Amino acid sequence: MTYAEQTGLEKVDMDFYRSSFVSGASNANRLRVQYFLRRDDGRLFADIWFGPEAAGPPDFAHGGALAAILDEAMGVMGWFNHYPVVTVNISIDYKSLMPLGHEAGLECWIERVDGRKVYTRGEIRNRDGELITSGQGIFVTLPMESLGKHRQAVSEFYGF
Amino acid sequence: MTYAEQTGLEKVDMDFYRSSFVSGASNANRLRVQYFLRRDDGRLFADIWFGPEAAGPPDFAHGGALAAILDEAMGVMGWFNHYPVVTVNISIDYKSLMPLGHEAGLECWIERVDGRKVYTRGEIRNRDGELITSGQGIFVTLPMESLGKHRQAVSEFYGF
Repeated sequence: MTYAEQTGLEKVDMDFYRSSFVSGASNANRLRVQYFLRRDDGRLFADIWFGPEAAGPPDFAHGGALAAILDEAMGVMGWFNHYPVVTVNISIDYKSLMPLGHEAGLECWIERVDGRKVYTRGEIRNRDGELITSGQGIFVTLPMESLGKHRQAVSEFYGF
Repeated sequence: MTYAEQTGLEKVDMDFYRSSFVSGASNANRLRVQYFLRRDDGRLFADIWFGPEAAGPPDFAHGGALAAILDEAMGVMGWFNHYPVVTVNISIDYKSLMPLGHEAGLECWIERVDGRKVYTRGEIRNRDGELITSGQGIFVTLPMESLGKHRQAVSEFYGF
């Protein structure tokens, strides 16, 4: 079952990320990413399709693509939880290969917050529930002033 | 100075990576990556250009792009050193933001080999030498038989 088919999840407007390396619109043959937010607990989910231009080992997704998706999703989740963050460190563990041309699901959550630091975790699983890749992130919150001209758009989108 | 301008470095034929998520030819507005090998000590270098489709924060490179490049370069270096590897873990530390439309340099090296595990490190620096991102990788060597139909092409390219 895809996250799009599940209840209690709010579809995120991906047009906000149109210039993103990971989820930009021009990535149609590479990655297709759709985020979903669960407002209840602030978890972020994603349906992901790995296209022929996301190759690492022949016929399988690039480890760097999996890392990039986890980095972005864990960061986006931070923003939806009203932590305007940038990445300090990600650690990515590779468990199984992800075949190209198939869909996977991502789920991520905040483990703890310590001052300006936000500690996150995320997992990418195939449609059989098998763990493909797991990740841990350490993010740091920025002062809202550092957003400059982007502050209003960000405030409207993330609601803070 | 770019690595292309330095002596003692052998330019890697990037056509071998044409379907890669990171260094494929269709990435012209996203990433442009050229690897160089130093046969003396097996270190791998890269000139990288970050295009407008590599965005993370507005006007800056996506952390996931930096992670993906380090993952690929550290793995490719393993193969050139005759370790046919896949990634087990990468840990990426973000130090400074990398502006889009600019070039950076990557250098990576093998720290140690322990049985089937290959431990690597890599750094991406801007043209002023400032550290943008550093990474550590843990890779595991595969039996050559697992390469199947790709074994001959790989053997010819990497010379083993």
